[in-house]
Amino acid sequence: MSFVLPHTPAAVLRDRREKLATSLGGATAFVFAGGERPRNYPANTYPYRADSHFLYLADLSLPRAVLAVGPDGSTLFRAPHGPQDALWHGPVPGDDELLGASGIDRVRDLADLPDAIASAIGACTLPSADPSTRVAQARMLGRGWTPGAHPAVGELDAPDLALADALIDLRLRHDAAALAGIRGAVEVTVAAHRAGMIATAPGRHEREVRAAIEAEMIAAEAVPAYGSIVTVAGEILHNVTHHRRLEAGDLMLVDAGAELHGWASDVTRTWPVSGSFSPTQRALYDVVLAAQQAAIEAIRPGVRYRDLHLLASTVLARGLVDEGILRGDPEGLVERGAHALFFPHGLGHLMGLDVHDMEDLWDRAGYAPGRTRAEDFGLCYLRLDRDLEPGMVVTIEPGLYVVPAILATRELVEPFERDGTLCREALERFADVRGIRIEDDVLCTDDGAQVLTAEIPKAPDEVVAAVGG
Amino acid sequence: MSFVLPHTPAAVLRDRREKLATSLGGATAFVFAGGERPRNYPANTYPYRADSHFLYLADLSLPRAVLAVGPDGSTLFRAPHGPQDALWHGPVPGDDELLGASGIDRVRDLADLPDAIASAIGACTLPSADPSTRVAQARMLGRGWTPGAHPAVGELDAPDLALADALIDLRLRHDAAALAGIRGAVEVTVAAHRAGMIATAPGRHEREVRAAIEAEMIAAEAVPAYGSIVTVAGEILHNVTHHRRLEAGDLMLVDAGAELHGWASDVTRTWPVSGSFSPTQRALYDVVLAAQQAAIEAIRPGVRYRDLHLLASTVLARGLVDEGILRGDPEGLVERGAHALFFPHGLGHLMGLDVHDMEDLWDRAGYAPGRTRAEDFGLCYLRLDRDLEPGMVVTIEPGLYVVPAILATRELVEPFERDGTLCREALERFADVRGIRIEDDVLCTDDGAQVLTAEIPKAPDEVVAAVGG
Repeated sequence: MSFVLPHTPAAVLRDRREKLATSLGGATAFVFAGGERPRNYPANTYPYRADSHFLYLADLSLPRAVLAVGPDGSTLFRAPHGPQDALWHGPVPGDDELLGASGIDRVRDLADLPDAIASAIGACTLPSADPSTRVAQARMLGRGWTPGAHPAVGELDAPDLALADALIDLRLRHDAAALAGIRGAVEVTVAAHRAGMIATAPGRHEREVRAAIEAEMIAAEAVPAYGSIVTVAGEILHNVTHHRRLEAGDLMLVDAGAELHGWASDVTRTWPVSGSFSPTQRALYDVVLAAQQAAIEAIRPGVRYRDLHLLASTVLARGLVDEGILRGDPEGLVERGAHALFFPHGLGHLMGLDVHDMEDLWDRAGYAPGRTRAEDFGLCYLRLDRDLEPGMVVTIEPGLYVVPAILATRELVEPFERDGTLCREALERFADVRGIRIEDDVLCTDDGAQVLTAEIPKAPDEVVAAVGG
Repeated sequence: MSFVLPHTPAAVLRDRREKLATSLGGATAFVFAGGERPRNYPANTYPYRADSHFLYLADLSLPRAVLAVGPDGSTLFRAPHGPQDALWHGPVPGDDELLGASGIDRVRDLADLPDAIASAIGACTLPSADPSTRVAQARMLGRGWTPGAHPAVGELDAPDLALADALIDLRLRHDAAALAGIRGAVEVTVAAHRAGMIATAPGRHEREVRAAIEAEMIAAEAVPAYGSIVTVAGEILHNVTHHRRLEAGDLMLVDAGAELHGWASDVTRTWPVSGSFSPTQRALYDVVLAAQQAAIEAIRPGVRYRDLHLLASTVLARGLVDEGILRGDPEGLVERGAHALFFPHGLGHLMGLDVHDMEDLWDRAGYAPGRTRAEDFGLCYLRLDRDLEPGMVVTIEPGLYVVPAILATRELVEPFERDGTLCREALERFADVRGIRIEDDVLCTDDGAQVLTAEIPKAPDEVVAAVGG
């Protein structure tokens, strides 16, 4: 029953729960696993995946279960299983087996939950991503969340905010078991990207390359941590269609990462369909790679992530100046936001159980207290602005894109065309570049950075060799 | 933008909508496409799939859209797209393109929907499978559905029930375009099962065979219509785990079907891991195959599906008697329910856009008016009890299973052990059989049946050849 029981040692789970209980003072947290979600009708559900906070503390794949953590230790409220469950779903672990494997103190029937919540001192919870679970939560805990929508942080009651902050504090810096979880997911992603590179050839379609990538995940009992981007139209940032035919002159942009036992990975590589970069493709690839390397080399405890974003932006701007696409000094260009015409998104985000870790709490995890998103185009998409600490895992994912929608938006472009900052003639020479992104998962260590995804070909000659050009 | 626009001709969609409008009299139906559903946090969503009723009438992959069909023709209420949508999601079709491709009469902004509903005469709707959409529906239409749960048919208001019946009447018998949709899905499933057979070998794992199967789906831009069952533990009926190692003596049971452009397929095959059946495996395989063939041969308009279930059950019972596992006359055994110890589920179900077609309406589609589910073990799982009509597509999926959970349930087994009906010693000879199921998708024609999935190896020698034993 490896599909129900924890992959994390019971001692680790117990340690996480004890730390949580300590920071909650005398309050009791009720962490909901969430239910199975219907796709087109109730009996046809998406593959079950428990809530990330629940996985962090209990690591059980038990639909509808609820974990209580408080001064009395830990209690698992478990949905009853009928005699016919074994016919349809096979044997399920007994209570003793669950307790032994998870280190949880006791099991109770889910029917007892409302009373347990009502009698708990300082009952707190976080809204499930599953709307049906949220309805039950709000009813049992008396929360006034807007029905149907995922409540914003501003809608959370004070005890729930305290729980959010306690969980952020725990999950922000990964313990050794969490890092092992991420490394497990990365291992699958390494195989997936290599398979994608091998499957690439002119005349094939994006969907065939995606099949090669995701087959590696399925074969490892992993799932995509997010909708795989496998496209020759890399300028569409969240492009999850896969119908295009690969032409010899195209660049393939693949942003795909496995999730294994709940832990995520998130990697982007860009490679030439033909197996060799054109000079213009290679020039901009080198610019993106330099920006990524500069950001990774600057990682160490205490560094502000937003400064890494600006550093990478400056390297990108310098590269665009060198290629004649922009004119001016790189720092000044970044100050004015000129780089964002070609690098409109953020440098990266936290990663852990969620690929954007703890984004169920919106920016509460990604942004340090007192910091909020900027309104500038580009910077407004930055998902992380904390000072780095050892144990944090972040993605570093600069890119360059030629986006028709941006270049046709007058208010974005005009300030830079009027004074000759943007040189459209030079840009035309790069017509065979639509989008290039290079992304790794990086651990902040005590004195620098460790690239967890270093095994995936990235240097231009490695990429070319892997594609088999 | 093939991923948004219809695959069904506009004239067909228009015809379906006109038929619906006619049967609604003067009422107006509001059919909700449903939104994107969060997995672990709001921005990380499952792959989008519109509601089946919406696909049937509009065939657009447009999250949050709502189609109104009534005496004024058809109106599409569409979520507004901002200037930054093109950056993240690429170009979306304009209103004229949508109208041309779908034959819908007009497009309005989604913001106009509440007023349109309030001013419509006889506004009716069906509850979306998406809980967040249901909240919005219930609010706008003043429905008192229980929050969080998918409303039962008994909770529907009279106008909504009339809409349900009108849609059932339309979707029950497939038009030519619907059949083309199903055939498209079947084509992918043929390739998927063949790939699964080829990928099977002792020492590999279920997950690797699943990868081969689902890679064929992904490569065709299809998705699994339901959680693929790929297992050597076929006695667990809804077994969606894939961690087991394949041993030479195992039977592989694969229940997997592609969904393409919304249309489903649903096929089960059972094959020997080693490439050859043992004599005991072959004996029971032949029994299941005979039961399936008897049921398929009996299909014609006017035949009651429940009688097909009983016919197949009788053939299975006869086979079990021939092998010495049961004693008695087959008809009498079926009357007493002895066959259900080894064939505990129903013979099949409707199939169309949903793999259990229209099961969002529970048994309202599957059961003819006035018919309800039996309470007997086995028959209580029968999802279909209508008289067949030309154009209906049903699955025919008998099976034989040795289920420890059943054979250990005293109240199920004792009546048959007491009088010697069940012979456990004979059963022990079949220790290398855990589960065998054979399932095809079958169209009821004017004078019989057409097996849509006939290209997938099924005769024992074909299966053995395909596995490469």
